[in-house]
Amino acid sequence: MTKTIEFYFDFSSPYGYLGAQRIQELAEKHQRVIDWQPVLLGVIFKVSGQAPLTTFPLKGDYAIMDFQRSARELNLPYVHPKKFPIATVAAARSVWWVKEHDDSAIHSLTTALVQAFFKAYYVDGQDLGDAEVVLETAASVGIDRDALANAVQEDAVKERLKTAVSDALDKKVFGSPMMIVDGESFWGNDRIEQLDRWLSRGGW
Amino acid sequence: MTKTIEFYFDFSSPYGYLGAQRIQELAEKHQRVIDWQPVLLGVIFKVSGQAPLTTFPLKGDYAIMDFQRSARELNLPYVHPKKFPIATVAAARSVWWVKEHDDSAIHSLTTALVQAFFKAYYVDGQDLGDAEVVLETAASVGIDRDALANAVQEDAVKERLKTAVSDALDKKVFGSPMMIVDGESFWGNDRIEQLDRWLSRGGW
Repeated sequence: MTKTIEFYFDFSSPYGYLGAQRIQELAEKHQRVIDWQPVLLGVIFKVSGQAPLTTFPLKGDYAIMDFQRSARELNLPYVHPKKFPIATVAAARSVWWVKEHDDSAIHSLTTALVQAFFKAYYVDGQDLGDAEVVLETAASVGIDRDALANAVQEDAVKERLKTAVSDALDKKVFGSPMMIVDGESFWGNDRIEQLDRWLSRGGW
Repeated sequence: MTKTIEFYFDFSSPYGYLGAQRIQELAEKHQRVIDWQPVLLGVIFKVSGQAPLTTFPLKGDYAIMDFQRSARELNLPYVHPKKFPIATVAAARSVWWVKEHDDSAIHSLTTALVQAFFKAYYVDGQDLGDAEVVLETAASVGIDRDALANAVQEDAVKERLKTAVSDALDKKVFGSPMMIVDGESFWGNDRIEQLDRWLSRGGW
């Protein structure tokens, strides 16, 4: 079985977006599959005693500057969303529903959906907290809009996301992006180079 | 005049220690001088609404693991201090006093003192919050112990540190290490590679 890179993130995390743009190349390089794990940072922050980065004096302003400076270095488009942070429940539920039906060995449809959501929010200036935006974006990658609209209201799908957040907490996930390989955790977009070295060297 | 890398840190910051071990090589590479800026994170955290990293559930355990994993990758010694965090007022005041009397163009004595304090706390297992440890460590790099013991109680030296913290806040310093080059801020030991690229490319 192909090994994974578990990629925990919240769509409302700019570093999650930046990390997601680079993790696919890294996964291919190390012949791993990305296991997309959308979670809800709001729930996680209650457990870990944190708050959204941009709400802190001084640190918040730096963060908004740094999202953009980091994107520029990586030649990635980034437009800081007007509405930030947002509730990402609908987007996260959508991914979990699609993922459970995604038979592709490399999770192609799940990956396409994750990237489409990120693009809508961080590139195209759309409000991903809006259920209509979620449905339209999903439709743009070929997902049945009506089926998804029903799915995100189903108890089973709601429970799937709750379980995912609970499982993430069990694995001590406290931020976004957090990447776990063979039980080893790496937190932050700025740790992707370190993760690359870890996988190349087989740890240290 | 030689350009500087302003290096803001608290001796009670493991990432400050790790960053300080690498910043000298970086400064030499880019023909810059390090402007050591010891500050008090406790004061800064009150303004920026933060708390010591290790006090957070989940995040705290990860941080302690990561201090050690990051040190191992860099082949740097690191023994997580038994007493952590500590009050670093005496150590910080000592650096400011020595710095004001350090005529060397590259701040040799200041650098030696900063590194000796870091080594005492993160390598030799000494309690840098203890005024005696501060004095003995300073003496080990050739600083007059009695003169320093008097200096750290002088109003002028106390004021110097207060002014330094206030100046750091004016420059929006909120963490350790924080490096400022030509007005551009970089936060974190894990951003030293990015700072290196920034200096090589002249920004982006």
